[in-house]
Amino acid sequence: MTHNFNAGPSILPREVFEEASRGILDFNGTGLSILELGHRTPLFESVLEEASQTLRELMHLNSDKEILFLHGGASTQFFQVPMNLLNEEETAAYLDCGVWGIKAIKEAKLFGYVEVVASSKEQGYTCIPKNYTVPDNARYFHFTTNNTIEGTEMFSIPEVNVPLVADMSSDILSQEMDFNRFGLIYAGAQKNIGAAGVNVVIVDKQMLGKVHRKMPSMMDYQLHIDNGSMLNTPPVFAIYVCLLTLRWVKKKGGIAAMETLNKAKADLLYNTLDANPLFKPTVAKEDRSRMNVVFTMDDPEKEKQFQEACKAANMVGVKGHRSVGGFRVSLYNALPLESVIALTDLIKSF
Amino acid sequence: MTHNFNAGPSILPREVFEEASRGILDFNGTGLSILELGHRTPLFESVLEEASQTLRELMHLNSDKEILFLHGGASTQFFQVPMNLLNEEETAAYLDCGVWGIKAIKEAKLFGYVEVVASSKEQGYTCIPKNYTVPDNARYFHFTTNNTIEGTEMFSIPEVNVPLVADMSSDILSQEMDFNRFGLIYAGAQKNIGAAGVNVVIVDKQMLGKVHRKMPSMMDYQLHIDNGSMLNTPPVFAIYVCLLTLRWVKKKGGIAAMETLNKAKADLLYNTLDANPLFKPTVAKEDRSRMNVVFTMDDPEKEKQFQEACKAANMVGVKGHRSVGGFRVSLYNALPLESVIALTDLIKSF
Repeated sequence: MTHNFNAGPSILPREVFEEASRGILDFNGTGLSILELGHRTPLFESVLEEASQTLRELMHLNSDKEILFLHGGASTQFFQVPMNLLNEEETAAYLDCGVWGIKAIKEAKLFGYVEVVASSKEQGYTCIPKNYTVPDNARYFHFTTNNTIEGTEMFSIPEVNVPLVADMSSDILSQEMDFNRFGLIYAGAQKNIGAAGVNVVIVDKQMLGKVHRKMPSMMDYQLHIDNGSMLNTPPVFAIYVCLLTLRWVKKKGGIAAMETLNKAKADLLYNTLDANPLFKPTVAKEDRSRMNVVFTMDDPEKEKQFQEACKAANMVGVKGHRSVGGFRVSLYNALPLESVIALTDLIKSF
Repeated sequence: MTHNFNAGPSILPREVFEEASRGILDFNGTGLSILELGHRTPLFESVLEEASQTLRELMHLNSDKEILFLHGGASTQFFQVPMNLLNEEETAAYLDCGVWGIKAIKEAKLFGYVEVVASSKEQGYTCIPKNYTVPDNARYFHFTTNNTIEGTEMFSIPEVNVPLVADMSSDILSQEMDFNRFGLIYAGAQKNIGAAGVNVVIVDKQMLGKVHRKMPSMMDYQLHIDNGSMLNTPPVFAIYVCLLTLRWVKKKGGIAAMETLNKAKADLLYNTLDANPLFKPTVAKEDRSRMNVVFTMDDPEKEKQFQEACKAANMVGVKGHRSVGGFRVSLYNALPLESVIALTDLIKSF
């Protein structure tokens, strides 16, 4: 058995792979591959509709929230968000918690004023800032709920007086939240929702129609809403994999069940790391991500040996991001507890 | 056997479906699904590299041409092209041959001046304009080589003094051309290259670095080139399907072999339609597309009967685009001659 700790694209449930594999040969007994289906056919429209409805149900979204499946990945949202929500003379507030937030801040500056209300840069991005103030005149407040590279995660929603905009690429569907409190949520699908190549955007209708600029059609959320995520040919197969993954989450008991399992996996791994003086988790205890566990070892030689031991135990994707070093182990929804047990056994015996 | 005449997403070779289906369960014997591979792994890097090299080889591209696999579909290129190539005070020339060209023109106007040098609007878009002049000061000349909806196609490259930019979404790899004469070529993959969700852009290096505007990182061709199509997580699976399809084109004899087969299929169908007074091909003979054959019937009742006959013969995707009516039959590279024979038999017996 291969243990897949990849940070994304990452492990998905085995039954999703099996169903997706079948759908490529024969989609639902039609004799056609999912890859050769016209997107404007009832067959694909029902895929899109069920994916959207299942996500709405899992996240308990109210009727003000529109769900879009878009091209471009979260990196496109870094600019599409301010293009749609921020006028040139207005200010948006941003939280700086690492690589992804920094990129979002850079893109937002092309469209208006950006106020970085807090940063954990001085702490090497090993924690989530608290006790900051978001100005009431900010058009929105943007943050990254889980920092894939640095291994920090937010476990409560900030209490501020402006609309919340969140990049949830790497922890969406992994913990319960009142998602209706957000003005806009976006997430690349390739961790907890499905396959790379599609991006989920959940936007509150009240957020739209307030910017003056002309924008390209493909960047306009309202046009995508008006066209039901089919303004152009959508990434058909990637959306199909989302549907299969969302069905799996629902069958397993929804986000609450995912959260319980994710807590168990993360607690087991962090406790094991804390108990072994050779290993050093890098993140402040209260901000430790349940999705991406980052740790180092004192000795580069030992790090190399541990890498080798992981490889020998059929564990892939444990190497840390090049900007942080050490190890990063990703524990997304689909990663079974057995893989974490295998890893903790290895840590204990090392 | 189902005959798939879908306009896109459309039929791909059966062996592509089979290999893609296997890759979802076990990619090249790794024990991992192609869907759970990290994109920054040698496994995926080799997919991207081989796809790029095979396309370069098939199209005989010189070393000035950069090949990108991008998110967003051709509709994103409608604005990404002028954003990267056209300054506000400059003019770009466009040819208006139907729905896709009109959309491209609309987006280009957001970035500079647009001169529509010719249009077949008055002819109901049933032909390709000839005998027009492209001003020498135009930054580039944009046209759509095949009009998927209207069923027209260009079989020679315009002789003008400015760089050529072409949307080849629906006929790339279907006919030989001197592709090195183009400054930029783009194509959504979901017809002749692979699966929906990825877009191929081939850009001549000489075209870049000439606009002054600041642009979002994800829209900047140069950044994508610098990052080898991995500025963010690419649409991994869609690119893999491109690789499989490109391998198939190469194995079958390349673009020349595709062209021979496409000519045979199109000639057979058009000749059969021309020989039957019930059927009316809508396009001027010299501009008839080999990819999308559009025709009507005099009598709406007969059209309905023919639709039913197609359905009974397991033919899908023959209905015309809602803007044109009648029938549209797509004959992309992967459509076997047998499907065209089945259709022509039906037409003859009708």
